[in-house]
Amino acid sequence: MLFDLFRSFGINLDLALEAREIVRGETGQEIPGVQVDRERFEHGEVTIVHIVEKAAETIMGKPVGTYITIEAPALRENHPAAHHEVSQILARQLERFVAHIPEYGNILLVGLGNWRATPDALGPKVIEMSLVTRHLYNYAPQELKGGMRSVSALAPGVLGLTGIETAEIIKGVVEKIRPELIIAIDSLAARSVTRICTTIQIADTGISPGSGIGNRRAGINRESMGVPVIAIGVPTVVHAAVISQDTINAYLEQLQNTPVNAGFNPALARRAIEQVLEPFGGNLTVTPKEIDALIATTAKVIAGGISLALHPGLTEDDYSYYLH
Amino acid sequence: MLFDLFRSFGINLDLALEAREIVRGETGQEIPGVQVDRERFEHGEVTIVHIVEKAAETIMGKPVGTYITIEAPALRENHPAAHHEVSQILARQLERFVAHIPEYGNILLVGLGNWRATPDALGPKVIEMSLVTRHLYNYAPQELKGGMRSVSALAPGVLGLTGIETAEIIKGVVEKIRPELIIAIDSLAARSVTRICTTIQIADTGISPGSGIGNRRAGINRESMGVPVIAIGVPTVVHAAVISQDTINAYLEQLQNTPVNAGFNPALARRAIEQVLEPFGGNLTVTPKEIDALIATTAKVIAGGISLALHPGLTEDDYSYYLH
Amino acid sequence: MLFDLFRSFGINLDLALEAREIVRGETGQEIPGVQVDRERFEHGEVTIVHIVEKAAETIMGKPVGTYITIEAPALRENHPAAHHEVSQILARQLERFVAHIPEYGNILLVGLGNWRATPDALGPKVIEMSLVTRHLYNYAPQELKGGMRSVSALAPGVLGLTGIETAEIIKGVVEKIRPELIIAIDSLAARSVTRICTTIQIADTGISPGSGIGNRRAGINRESMGVPVIAIGVPTVVHAAVISQDTINAYLEQLQNTPVNAGFNPALARRAIEQVLEPFGGNLTVTPKEIDALIATTAKVIAGGISLALHPGLTEDDYSYYLH
Amino acid sequence: MLFDLFRSFGINLDLALEAREIVRGETGQEIPGVQVDRERFEHGEVTIVHIVEKAAETIMGKPVGTYITIEAPALRENHPAAHHEVSQILARQLERFVAHIPEYGNILLVGLGNWRATPDALGPKVIEMSLVTRHLYNYAPQELKGGMRSVSALAPGVLGLTGIETAEIIKGVVEKIRPELIIAIDSLAARSVTRICTTIQIADTGISPGSGIGNRRAGINRESMGVPVIAIGVPTVVHAAVISQDTINAYLEQLQNTPVNAGFNPALARRAIEQVLEPFGGNLTVTPKEIDALIATTAKVIAGGISLALHPGLTEDDYSYYLH
Repeated sequence: MLFDLFRSFGINLDLALEAREIVRGETGQEIPGVQVDRERFEHGEVTIVHIVEKAAETIMGKPVGTYITIEAPALRENHPAAHHEVSQILARQLERFVAHIPEYGNILLVGLGNWRATPDALGPKVIEMSLVTRHLYNYAPQELKGGMRSVSALAPGVLGLTGIETAEIIKGVVEKIRPELIIAIDSLAARSVTRICTTIQIADTGISPGSGIGNRRAGINRESMGVPVIAIGVPTVVHAAVISQDTINAYLEQLQNTPVNAGFNPALARRAIEQVLEPFGGNLTVTPKEIDALIATTAKVIAGGISLALHPGLTEDDYSYYLH
Repeated sequence: MLFDLFRSFGINLDLALEAREIVRGETGQEIPGVQVDRERFEHGEVTIVHIVEKAAETIMGKPVGTYITIEAPALRENHPAAHHEVSQILARQLERFVAHIPEYGNILLVGLGNWRATPDALGPKVIEMSLVTRHLYNYAPQELKGGMRSVSALAPGVLGLTGIETAEIIKGVVEKIRPELIIAIDSLAARSVTRICTTIQIADTGISPGSGIGNRRAGINRESMGVPVIAIGVPTVVHAAVISQDTINAYLEQLQNTPVNAGFNPALARRAIEQVLEPFGGNLTVTPKEIDALIATTAKVIAGGISLALHPGLTEDDYSYYLH
Repeated sequence: MLFDLFRSFGINLDLALEAREIVRGETGQEIPGVQVDRERFEHGEVTIVHIVEKAAETIMGKPVGTYITIEAPALRENHPAAHHEVSQILARQLERFVAHIPEYGNILLVGLGNWRATPDALGPKVIEMSLVTRHLYNYAPQELKGGMRSVSALAPGVLGLTGIETAEIIKGVVEKIRPELIIAIDSLAARSVTRICTTIQIADTGISPGSGIGNRRAGINRESMGVPVIAIGVPTVVHAAVISQDTINAYLEQLQNTPVNAGFNPALARRAIEQVLEPFGGNLTVTPKEIDALIATTAKVIAGGISLALHPGLTEDDYSYYLH
Repeated sequence: MLFDLFRSFGINLDLALEAREIVRGETGQEIPGVQVDRERFEHGEVTIVHIVEKAAETIMGKPVGTYITIEAPALRENHPAAHHEVSQILARQLERFVAHIPEYGNILLVGLGNWRATPDALGPKVIEMSLVTRHLYNYAPQELKGGMRSVSALAPGVLGLTGIETAEIIKGVVEKIRPELIIAIDSLAARSVTRICTTIQIADTGISPGSGIGNRRAGINRESMGVPVIAIGVPTVVHAAVISQDTINAYLEQLQNTPVNAGFNPALARRAIEQVLEPFGGNLTVTPKEIDALIATTAKVIAGGISLALHPGLTEDDYSYYLH
């Protein structure tokens, strides 16, 4: 039902964890065809949602696959040790997807999003902070030390800047350099502002069409690219329509303590929300003012985690000084 | 009443036009001590709100002074001719404040805001596109043609980047270079998303403390700076709390067509909104996804209007090729 | 002979005009297989060098093709009218290569070079200032007015940032979107500092391997891309080894007015230059300090000229307000 | 004599170490009024030139004061451990100037130079990477841990961008915030390309008028600012006129092995160099193509060193995660 309201505004639920919560919230029980694992670490929690059956795919609105979610509220605080730990947790979770790839087997990092719009700039920022080594394998092997993989990196921009579908640019490059694996980094939309820059999702299903805050039109996944795609996504916004809808609900809840008895009416809600968000509709997003600082921190944590996973031979000290 | 709700989230009404609408909406009549002029142009409308009496100052929450608002919905469209006209309207409105300043009398442009956060970057972007000439007067007068004024420009950054109050930086520079006039450009928050990048406010009262989307802490005005300050502001966001509150109202209006009878209850609304916006409170803003493109267009229109007003000897062709 | 000295430092002559001057300087007569046309305009001169025979190709070190050079010293001055004229001359010269392409036939702009290194950033800067329309043809045709072509644009970065050969990225994208024509914009190295940001070369031979100041490794031309490639290049640097060699020559010329008689000795010159440029060798470039301002102006002139040529339906006023 | 040639092109020697070498080279003996200390570390060398007497000031062209030079060729290599060591050496050398400043006593970092021109962007880049804390002392003391000083930071831009002398902006801010110490970071010009991004100079004399690659017009030192100024400078260019002159000398040296006997003639050299560098004269600089990467590394080393010196309570791990 909520799904329908969101979809009427062109809004996707990017986090599998949230999709599961909503579905379970409606049905009150575990979703058939879904398995969940949990793991605590000092400054947060890892939840792994396995969508194992086709049936669950339809209910959840997410393809069959593994969705690892790292939740760490301390990411939003000035807490170096916690950030550090999250980088390491991310690295450890990524390792399962890269362990089988030999040093010379290339991995392509793709930073999705629009570098000119702060909340959508996470992907390009991670690319800027990533250690690129593929050319060294070809032209300057003496610059490499042991335990480094061949990594290339691309921030393909967005349709409005290039006139080209992002997926077309990536696919074109993939057909030339034939990587073993793509790791795509993207900004997501969450259902709750508490998730902004505190939650990281790693999905082995890649990017679905219409997801991400820029609503990438075409999917970037194994089917479209011909190689496995790991998507790393972080919510940086909540759609304004979601906030609006939640506020109506919250107000109605407050009303329950009064004599008024008004249930949530999706049709009325839709009309009310449309009126307030006119003329932008589902195209409005909510972000904290300090989003630039939050994105900078998150990009550093993610770029660091990726480099630790891909280049096991590097010490962290190496890493921080290796970067250009 | 609404004012109170907003203030409880630390939200100011930056546009005098909106403050007047709300006050009048509550009282149903013209505000004593306020005078309003109107003027149509092809692609929009100019409204001039004169707050002439101290009493009105308190009611409106805005200091005595002149607030010129240019409303031009076509600013958000791909409509070069309309943008062009708005630049000229802006120039004409600015001229009244600069006409008395001689060529050698310096004017300081100040671009307020955080260049790393797209919706707050309007001020710094205008500075980038502005024609700076003060140094030519001293070092290369042969580069000047007739009808150009001495202009200097500064984007002082924000407290989080410099550790210094913006007003302190400006005041320090003002005491050194002693301009005749400051023109400060800032991103504002509006009450309605329709105003985002379609409304321009020119105020001869400068910047009040706490206004602007970055909530500049200290005022930048004649009192603090010792010279007149003209503020040019454009809404680039709406506070999420405003959207939330409007949605509740809109939903309640929809309910009026049903048997349920629920009036707006500010205390409940406040609790509902707080709950949804937790943990950011009044610190969340709503922006359209294409804000980067909207800001780029608006910055061009404003920088162009300022240059036309300050450098009457320049043709528009000169202007576009003069810029670095 | 000079060619040899430069080549020993890995230096190419990017301008056909200069290659011709040097060859003619050595032989004293017109080069067989080369034809030259000239045309004056108010603020400069157009020279068209046609290399028509294979034999000339070897002598000139440039492939058979047409090389149009616009020389306009006023590009380096604060002279809006002259810049304007150069944009129009560039547009007129480009038209011969695009006239046959229908509106729906896509043209791909490629901005070569490193956006982090000012003198190599011309290509990416032109892309930023270019009017991209291909997506509008597909998704928003109402935004188009008559007389606009389908244009896409890409700044592929450099090997050190992506780990991928620039030509691989472009070729990958070309195979996906199949443009009718590529226009590649690049920073060049000249033989004389007077040419820096005052000379524009348009070549229908594309980019040769090893040319441009970043020494793009692979060619970007009809052979490698499968579609015609027009290269627009502007010198932004002179190699330090060229300056060094020219200084030796200039000093030896001065000596001719003294009793000392010392001819130019290439072997000694090479050793002297190597010693001074150690440890960078041919990898050092000479640029004026104000290169950022020069590049900004040149990028505007080129982006403007390209848009006038590709979108004949746009007025210049449209153009300047159309840009994001 | 060389000094005169350079000065005729408006060129200063920014490094005291080089000035001393040239003076000693001419006189063959130690300079009266100058004392020199040396210290080796694993990846480089520290040389401290004390200019103690006024007489030496005139000969050296540098004010009385202490000039600490860190020479570390490994800065130009991919050598994390060496970069790390240089950061620590820099921190240790800086400590002597900051040890007496209490936590609450503010230190102002100033990043001189033009962020749009890569070789002149070192100062602004260091500011971007610096830990700013002054506002936390006032508004969010809970964000501070022990052992952190109050630091503010400013990149004032250059005359061509602001129309205001850099020194005026800094002086204006200094009079407002009254720091105990200014640390100014600047790009310098060296006499030899081997020094580019391998040499760091720390001078307690601040910035002299006319030094730095942008030739800051006014001095930024204790006299002009009223507080002590420590200048940290790194050569990022060599003036083209210096390269030219060195090449003539190197060629003449090569000629000594031939029967030709031609001594260096400054008047002829000047004419030859002028001819080659026309129309830019002393305004041309020589830089390696990879200057963007070299500047990025150097900025990181310097920002790191400064933070270690100013915030003794931070671990390096803290530092790298503290940064926005």
